[in-house]
Amino acid sequence: MTSLDASTPAFDWIDGGGVTTPLGFVAGAVYAGIKTYGDEPRLDLGVLGGEAPLTAAGVFTRNAVTGHSVSHGRNLFARTSTIRGVVINSGNANTVTGTQGAKDCAHLAALAGALLGGTAGDVIVGSTGVIGRMLPMAKVERGASEITLSRDGGYAFSRAIMTTDTHEKQAALRFEVAGRAYRVGGCAKGSGMIHPNMGTMYGVVTTDAPVDAAWLDATWRAIVDRTFNMIDVDMDTSTSDMALVMASGAAGGDPVSAGHPAEAMLIAAIDAVAGRLARSVARDGEGATCLIEATASGAASVEDARIAARTVTSSPLVKTAVTGRDPNWGRIMMAAGRSGARIDQDRASVWIGEHCVLDAGQPVAVDLKLVSEAMGHEVVSIRVDLGVGDASATAWGCNLTHEYVSINADYTT
Amino acid sequence: MTSLDASTPAFDWIDGGGVTTPLGFVAGAVYAGIKTYGDEPRLDLGVLGGEAPLTAAGVFTRNAVTGHSVSHGRNLFARTSTIRGVVINSGNANTVTGTQGAKDCAHLAALAGALLGGTAGDVIVGSTGVIGRMLPMAKVERGASEITLSRDGGYAFSRAIMTTDTHEKQAALRFEVAGRAYRVGGCAKGSGMIHPNMGTMYGVVTTDAPVDAAWLDATWRAIVDRTFNMIDVDMDTSTSDMALVMASGAAGGDPVSAGHPAEAMLIAAIDAVAGRLARSVARDGEGATCLIEATASGAASVEDARIAARTVTSSPLVKTAVTGRDPNWGRIMMAAGRSGARIDQDRASVWIGEHCVLDAGQPVAVDLKLVSEAMGHEVVSIRVDLGVGDASATAWGCNLTHEYVSINADYTT
Repeated sequence: MTSLDASTPAFDWIDGGGVTTPLGFVAGAVYAGIKTYGDEPRLDLGVLGGEAPLTAAGVFTRNAVTGHSVSHGRNLFARTSTIRGVVINSGNANTVTGTQGAKDCAHLAALAGALLGGTAGDVIVGSTGVIGRMLPMAKVERGASEITLSRDGGYAFSRAIMTTDTHEKQAALRFEVAGRAYRVGGCAKGSGMIHPNMGTMYGVVTTDAPVDAAWLDATWRAIVDRTFNMIDVDMDTSTSDMALVMASGAAGGDPVSAGHPAEAMLIAAIDAVAGRLARSVARDGEGATCLIEATASGAASVEDARIAARTVTSSPLVKTAVTGRDPNWGRIMMAAGRSGARIDQDRASVWIGEHCVLDAGQPVAVDLKLVSEAMGHEVVSIRVDLGVGDASATAWGCNLTHEYVSINADYTT
Repeated sequence: MTSLDASTPAFDWIDGGGVTTPLGFVAGAVYAGIKTYGDEPRLDLGVLGGEAPLTAAGVFTRNAVTGHSVSHGRNLFARTSTIRGVVINSGNANTVTGTQGAKDCAHLAALAGALLGGTAGDVIVGSTGVIGRMLPMAKVERGASEITLSRDGGYAFSRAIMTTDTHEKQAALRFEVAGRAYRVGGCAKGSGMIHPNMGTMYGVVTTDAPVDAAWLDATWRAIVDRTFNMIDVDMDTSTSDMALVMASGAAGGDPVSAGHPAEAMLIAAIDAVAGRLARSVARDGEGATCLIEATASGAASVEDARIAARTVTSSPLVKTAVTGRDPNWGRIMMAAGRSGARIDQDRASVWIGEHCVLDAGQPVAVDLKLVSEAMGHEVVSIRVDLGVGDASATAWGCNLTHEYVSINADYTT
C-alpha cells in the first residue's frame, strides 16, 4: 500500500546512483583509523566536491550545543554560497572539545580544501560520532593525504559518513525539461540521535542544474522542513545535524530560479531525493525492523499537523506497540493529545493501515487480528484526524526494539 | 551518596504507612475483574475517603486528550474544594470511550459516593489502564458492592491503583508543632506513560491537618511542580494523570494557612511525601534497574534548570548509556543542548557521580572505569552546569532496558 517512495512523482530513478551521479562532482574516501569496529577497518573520512566551484545551501542543528563543524559551516555560509565541497569524518563528533577542537576542525577543512583546489574557507565540514573526544589529527592528516577523488567516488563517500547505520543511504534520479537533462543525487546517514531540527546528521544532495543561490537557499529550507525535519528515531537531536545541497551547473543552461521552466521539476526532484533519503534514515533507525509513516489530518494548521504526526512517530509507546503488533490505538490518541496540536477528541478518528479503529470519537468494533496484521508490514501506516481543520502532514519514524537498547547501552567503550 | 530521600528534612517516617495513616481516612479495595493478568486476580478497584468531609485540591494531565475521569474531576473542583473521597480503578482508562464512557464515569462516582455517604458530585474518579475500551460496568457494580472501608485500608487501596508497577508505592510521616501531632501519607502509581505534566498517574496524598482550601490548592500546585512534574519514564504523558491531596482536619486545631505556626513544617512534610512517591514512581519505571537523578545548575532561570534536568533524565541515549554503564557524557551535553535551556558550551561542566568529566568546556582526563562504576549505583547522579546563571533544579528518571521494550510491545492483547 505504501512504499518508501509513495509520495514522489514518477522520476527516472538511477539504481546505485548517489552524490556523484550529477555531472561536475568528484568524491573519495579512506579508512583513516578514526572509527574502529574491532579489527575491521571501515571508511571514516570522505571528501565530496565540485570540478569547479559550487553553489550551495545548508541548514544545521538547532541543538544549543554544537560541534565545531557546525560553527565552521554557519560562518562559511554567512559569508558566501560558493564553495568547493564538503569533508565528513565519522567516529568522532569533535563536539565539546574546547579550543583545540576548533583548531582541528579548521585544519581538517584546510586538508580537504587543498584536495579540492581551494582553502579551508571553501569547504564545509561534518564530524559525526562520539562527543567529547579529541580528533586524532595525525591519523586524519595521513588519511587525507591518501584520498583520491573521482567521478564515481560517491559510493565510498556514502559509506565513510556512516556510524551505526546498517547500510549506506543513496539516491539519484534524472529528468528532462525542454530537451535538457538534469540529475539530482544524494546520500545520508542515521541512525541514532535522530530527531532533526534542521537536517539529519547528515543529508547531502547534489545536482548538476545551474541554480540561483538565493533561490536554492529558500528552496532547500522548505524541502528540509518536509523531509529531514519530519523523521525521528529517538527524540534526541544531534549536535552535528546538517543538510547540505550543492549545485554544479554542469548540466548547462540558465540558472534555475523562480519562473524558470525547470523550476517545478527541480524542486520536485530535490524533494524526492531528500524524502527518499530521510525515509531511509528512519527505516534504518537503530534496531528498527519497519518504517512507521504517520499522517495527521484535520489539523488547524500545517504546524499543528507536523507536531502531531511527529509526536506519534516518536512516542516510545506507539513504537513499542508496533514492535508487538499490538493494535493499542489509544497510544496514538495519547501521543496526538500530548503533542501540543489542537485536537477535538469527540471528533477525532484513527486509522491503522486501512482499518478505522476510532471514528469521530467513537471506538469501532474492528477485527483486531486484521489490525495487528497491518502492523506487521514493512511500512506501518497510521493516520490520526484531529477533527478541527483541514491541514495535514506526514512524518516518518521506526519501531523501538530490544536492539535499540543493545546498540546504545554499549556504544563508546 | 544519594538516596530516595536525599533532599528531604528529617521526619518521623512511618514504615508501611500510607494514605490511611493520617487520622480521619478510610479505604478499601476489591478485585472486580477489570484487570486481568492471566488467571491471577489482582485488586483493581479502590475507594479512599474521609470519615467526615475533606478539604481537597487536585491537578490533572495537560494532555489535550483526557479520560472522562479527568473531566469529572475538573468539573468537581471548579465547583467546590470539599469532597468525600476518591475512587480509582486500574486496567481500563475509560478514555476515548464516547458518550457511554462519560455515563460510566458518573455511575462509578455515584457507586463510590454511596459508600462514602455522599453523591457522585462528592467523589473524584481515577481510571487508569488501556485507552479506548468500555468499562465493564456489571463487574464494576458487583465489585463496588463488595468494598469494605476501614482505617487500615490504605495498603489495599495502594495495590488496587497499580498497572505495570512491580510494587505498591506508599509513604507516611508524622511531625509535631507546638505539641500537636500531624500526619501526612500518600500513595502513587507508575510506571509507563510517565512524563507528567500535572501530577503523575496517580499520586494521592492525605493529611489530618486542618487546612484552608485556597492555601492547600496553591501549596499543592507548587509541590507538584517540583515533585511529580519532575519525573519521567518515557516522555509519554498519560491522558489520566492526577495528583490529589486531601486533608481531614482530624488532627485538630486551627486550619493551616499562611502564617500558621505549622505552615512551614506541613509544606515540607507534604513535599517530602510527594517527593518520595515521585522518586519511587521513577525508580519503578517500566523495566528500570536504577534511579537517575539529574541536577541542572548554573541556569538562567528555574524554568531553564527544570527543562534541562528533565531532558537529561528523559533522553533515550542518556538512559541507555546508564544501562550500559557507559561514561559517554557527550550525550548529557547533547540532551542539555536540545532542551531549550540557555547553555554556554564553553563554560558548561558535567559530573557523573562525584566525577567531573567536563570542566568549563574542557574535557577532563578522568579514569573512565571509575565513572562507569558510579553509573552502576542504585541511584545514578548526574549534574550539568549550564554556565549561564545561578538557578538549579533536579529531575528524576530511570534507565532504559530491554525489559521496557518487552513490557510495552505486549501490553493490551
